[in-house]
Amino acid sequence: MPLVIQKFGGSSVADTHHIFNVAKKITDVYKSGNDVVAVVSAQGDTTDKLQQLMEEITDEASKREKDVLLSSGEQVSSSLLAMAVQKLGFPAVSLTGWQAGFLTESNHTDARIIKIDTKRIENELKNKNIVIVAGFQGIDENGDITTLGRGGSDTSAVALAAALNADICKIYTDVDGVYTADPRSVVSAKKWSSLSYDTMFEMAHFGAQVLNERSIETAKKFGVTVEVLSSLSDNLSGTVITKETKAITNTISGISLKNHLAKVTVSARDNTEKHKNLITSEMDKTGIKIDSSMKPVGKQNKDIFNFIVEENHINDFLAVTKKIGIENQNIQISYEKNKSEISVINISESLNLNTASIIFETLSEMNIDVEMVACDEKRVSVVVASECANSAVNAIHSKLFEEDMII
Amino acid sequence: MPLVIQKFGGSSVADTHHIFNVAKKITDVYKSGNDVVAVVSAQGDTTDKLQQLMEEITDEASKREKDVLLSSGEQVSSSLLAMAVQKLGFPAVSLTGWQAGFLTESNHTDARIIKIDTKRIENELKNKNIVIVAGFQGIDENGDITTLGRGGSDTSAVALAAALNADICKIYTDVDGVYTADPRSVVSAKKWSSLSYDTMFEMAHFGAQVLNERSIETAKKFGVTVEVLSSLSDNLSGTVITKETKAITNTISGISLKNHLAKVTVSARDNTEKHKNLITSEMDKTGIKIDSSMKPVGKQNKDIFNFIVEENHINDFLAVTKKIGIENQNIQISYEKNKSEISVINISESLNLNTASIIFETLSEMNIDVEMVACDEKRVSVVVASECANSAVNAIHSKLFEEDMII
Repeated sequence: MPLVIQKFGGSSVADTHHIFNVAKKITDVYKSGNDVVAVVSAQGDTTDKLQQLMEEITDEASKREKDVLLSSGEQVSSSLLAMAVQKLGFPAVSLTGWQAGFLTESNHTDARIIKIDTKRIENELKNKNIVIVAGFQGIDENGDITTLGRGGSDTSAVALAAALNADICKIYTDVDGVYTADPRSVVSAKKWSSLSYDTMFEMAHFGAQVLNERSIETAKKFGVTVEVLSSLSDNLSGTVITKETKAITNTISGISLKNHLAKVTVSARDNTEKHKNLITSEMDKTGIKIDSSMKPVGKQNKDIFNFIVEENHINDFLAVTKKIGIENQNIQISYEKNKSEISVINISESLNLNTASIIFETLSEMNIDVEMVACDEKRVSVVVASECANSAVNAIHSKLFEEDMII
Repeated sequence: MPLVIQKFGGSSVADTHHIFNVAKKITDVYKSGNDVVAVVSAQGDTTDKLQQLMEEITDEASKREKDVLLSSGEQVSSSLLAMAVQKLGFPAVSLTGWQAGFLTESNHTDARIIKIDTKRIENELKNKNIVIVAGFQGIDENGDITTLGRGGSDTSAVALAAALNADICKIYTDVDGVYTADPRSVVSAKKWSSLSYDTMFEMAHFGAQVLNERSIETAKKFGVTVEVLSSLSDNLSGTVITKETKAITNTISGISLKNHLAKVTVSARDNTEKHKNLITSEMDKTGIKIDSSMKPVGKQNKDIFNFIVEENHINDFLAVTKKIGIENQNIQISYEKNKSEISVINISESLNLNTASIIFETLSEMNIDVEMVACDEKRVSVVVASECANSAVNAIHSKLFEEDMII
């Protein structure tokens, strides 16, 4: 019997109405003669609420305890969803991460899955149960609860699809597929019917929030066919992510946007390169993500270097530089918030010079200042002030896609 | 090193302020040179909120899924409490029911503990960790999450004390001990410094909410010394529950009160005894608790019999009588809500005739109608209208205790 994995995010199960909507999507697939395993995130703003409770207690909670706390959210949503499926008259059983057999590394709050012991799930499927799995979580070899980091439920679903050799992994979200740009801000964005793993990875890496990067890596590694589709509409066809397809080689596949970035500027009178390396390695050690691939545009001062850091990590960044004593060495660190990174994804180096010139020309016509730029065989990225980002994305999209639409 | 088990109920961890208050009680005991295992209930009204979520989905949730849902509450409170203990500068680790080794029967929502595998807890204690255990929960032999029923965290704590051979099990609650009557309604109630297991059991059975019955049975079975004390005040001495003590033999030990009861009246023209037995056995099968020990006072009609049923079980009671076809047999069932049962606990039959007459005399003087009565070697109970219950308890307490106080 075909096996379908379905994954539903937090907004899809935010309240009773949404939960029954999801229960219907699950039972429809079951009624069509499939085995079904559904992976579910915590309801709506549950995770935020739990974080608030935590922050009232401490601003330096141990990651182990944080995982115990946050994983309760999916335990709640999975049991409620199982109740709703039962209410519709179908047999269902919810399983937490450890019950579903997710063994992970011990790296709390961002653990990687080591393997999935699928015995319990297979038994439940044999008994014709619809299995509802709490996403985002597992246990390590000590029996401690772990979580998989941001977007972890996507990874749970794709890894389960691989372990169970499922026919397809359907990721339900609040858009009905993957677009050439975010359809909420670019009205003329077009939906792809299919995309390669590599292209999807780049789009996710540079800001498309429809699927997380780790889940795409996992899908590629195990050849899992993933479909991104809407949990709200009944439009059945989404975007299928699969192996390289001819149609999308050497083609610009989309425009991604990352907001809430800060541009950090470090002025060092001497040993500039040494300090840059020191900061990079320390941030790597402490897990603070910095982007040093972006280069300034225009005349450059060799005593100055820049990093792009997510706004909500800027305090951590400054705490680390303070701790390693950077500030005692005649070095000044400043930052500007409200920066955005626009990336055009284009798995073909040969096309990128042309793409870059189109981007610069478009932004120049709009009088938008390009503050930083990065260009490689997979993308062209520019950093602009966030207030210009949406109009810039729309203009670039219009230039690249609407005159000579390939889809 | 001495081992102390501490148990904190939901109101004791209701918010951040209360959590830190509890964390301080825990670390004080730890600082005094004890190993500490704390058992914690879900925060304040968490369980009610989860029940509400469930009832929005279905009024007939499977008990298995209900246990998955409700057990998340203690997972949250245990991790928050561990964070607070850490914030105070002490090492702590939270454990869910399954991590703490609680193996139970499969009887979801009211499972009994079979055994506790204490290996994990002992390892944590060896590493000098303060262990915070999520109360009320365990797993069955299938690896499914179970809960222990009302007051289950008390049972978790006492069973842990037995399994770990702890020196004492301290139950922190919103009163600072066990009183001759509920001190919230009887101002002159006096606190016992110690009570026997048997007396405490009777007091709990007949309404004292300070400890649940199953935990007292467990304490008696394994000889666990239990102390009931306040989580709010710093008054250190509570009430110690232990083996029979001389001081409290042949003594009235307290007045318990049960509210929210319904008096069910069944009128059967024939086969009265047969129907009574049928109803009793069916309620037993379906787990609906009825009290048939209470007898009407005054002239009795042999075609009529009564049960005392908790108000929130009255609909279930009627559903069962309907299902077994009782109503088709010339039988009428009616009920009155807002009844209360007052019990005077007195582990000595010889004293009870005198006690009964004092109770009747007191209520008669107050013009309070005694609707039903039960009397055995452990207690004298009367059923009265709830609106009279508090004044009745106060008057009886005054007669029995205040003139010739034994404590």
